[in-house]
Amino acid sequence: MAFFDTVAIVGVGLIGGSMGLALRKERMARHVIGIGRRMEQLRIAQERGAITDFTGDLAQGVSAANLVVVCTPVSLIPQHVAAAAKAAGPDTIITDAGSTKAAIVATCDKALADAKGLWASFVGSHPLAGSERTGVESARDDLFQERTVVITPTDATRPESADRVEELWQGLGSDVVRMSPEEHDAAIAVTSHLPHLIASALAAATPQNLLHLTATGWGDTTRIASGDVELWTQILLDNRVHTLKALAPFEKVLSDLKKSLEAGDSAALTRLLQQGKRTRDSVGS
Amino acid sequence: MAFFDTVAIVGVGLIGGSMGLALRKERMARHVIGIGRRMEQLRIAQERGAITDFTGDLAQGVSAANLVVVCTPVSLIPQHVAAAAKAAGPDTIITDAGSTKAAIVATCDKALADAKGLWASFVGSHPLAGSERTGVESARDDLFQERTVVITPTDATRPESADRVEELWQGLGSDVVRMSPEEHDAAIAVTSHLPHLIASALAAATPQNLLHLTATGWGDTTRIASGDVELWTQILLDNRVHTLKALAPFEKVLSDLKKSLEAGDSAALTRLLQQGKRTRDSVGS
Repeated sequence: MAFFDTVAIVGVGLIGGSMGLALRKERMARHVIGIGRRMEQLRIAQERGAITDFTGDLAQGVSAANLVVVCTPVSLIPQHVAAAAKAAGPDTIITDAGSTKAAIVATCDKALADAKGLWASFVGSHPLAGSERTGVESARDDLFQERTVVITPTDATRPESADRVEELWQGLGSDVVRMSPEEHDAAIAVTSHLPHLIASALAAATPQNLLHLTATGWGDTTRIASGDVELWTQILLDNRVHTLKALAPFEKVLSDLKKSLEAGDSAALTRLLQQGKRTRDSVGS
Repeated sequence: MAFFDTVAIVGVGLIGGSMGLALRKERMARHVIGIGRRMEQLRIAQERGAITDFTGDLAQGVSAANLVVVCTPVSLIPQHVAAAAKAAGPDTIITDAGSTKAAIVATCDKALADAKGLWASFVGSHPLAGSERTGVESARDDLFQERTVVITPTDATRPESADRVEELWQGLGSDVVRMSPEEHDAAIAVTSHLPHLIASALAAATPQNLLHLTATGWGDTTRIASGDVELWTQILLDNRVHTLKALAPFEKVLSDLKKSLEAGDSAALTRLLQQGKRTRDSVGS
């Protein structure tokens, strides 16, 4: 059973708050220290039982931590990991929850390599467990249950740190998959970043005066367009090369569907819809 | 309060079965006669309480009906409406639940006009209350609660029949909107048929070997791709002109998103994501 006496969570929103709730529910941590800038949010997190203590000072907050989980927006993760690595002890393990990995992991690996083992170690993580909702108010102690978490150890990662981070996520009920940061970004561009782009485009293309004629189909297909715009701008820009690459097969299928409609080609249309149904059905509801 | 002594439902699947359950729950019908070809399905519908009697003979099933609801696939609706109109009395009201209206209503209006008032009357309906599931097993007595139903009376429609059909849906808890069949098809192409095309394209474009890395975002965005392929082939072909027209604004926004990613233009990307979020947020979960 994974146990971390003191865990520091940098950024206590939906992911960080759910991490705290889950760690305490599973009795995987004695102290959970929330670190952030907005004291009011940290107070709510403490009231909800997601954290036991909180501070606005990152260096102080991580100083006694065995594990630090950085749950801030992707553009801030490298600086928070570097600051935490410097302030924590050399046995401290740091991980993150960022939706992109290549740039983050490369920057963190480089920062930690400079410290020649005197600082904490880092292992990249990405729990595939988001929501269009944000904030600690939406945090849930079962957010990571039966979810997939990708961890992205590299040649620079201490193997025992990767094993501990794997135990962390497994303790929270997740299936852990190991991939390189680059493999991760290419795959997640297809399974997460492309869907966000498409849902946003569909929502943005729907005129207000027709919204009263939408039903659950439109609602499901566009749901993730409600996600935090600033976070998603960062994610999509950070992974833009892979996301653009992922767009091409979608555009090809959509163009084939369009041609089948233009031609009134029932057989071709049926074949494409079947291909989509087969793939969708193999995932389940 | 709308009351129809005897209602005949042609096609007792998800929609027809839910209609029967709701009519009986709301005590809006004494007898609900299920009409179909598959006796086993009709037996299940009766066991579930969706219908009180059933028959495989359409003419016999509708002969005593005050109201006939045709819930068969769109390509079969005109022939079922015509057959029902001929076999039922002149005071019988017929409606349908088809996802397209212009072609269906034109064909039905023409067939009924030939009868010079000796047959039943017809009013087109489209309850915006589908599901990716099918079959009477998935029927629910609250499927139409708080949903929008479009009815499409034309110059050929008896005004009192349109009023009765409006009362029918209102009795089942729906909001009724009146539109011309053409307005309906143009609007629903945007709010329902385009989302289906896009969800199918996204599902079909996702390689099997990445499905274990999908999460709720991909799942929501592709959910409707699980819908019945034969039904959707008919719907999309029937409404292909409007669906192709609805595709253009989506392609434009997607192309703008693509350009913003290619250029690394954070401001443009943010603006487009905000537009999508604003539209999506105005609908609610």
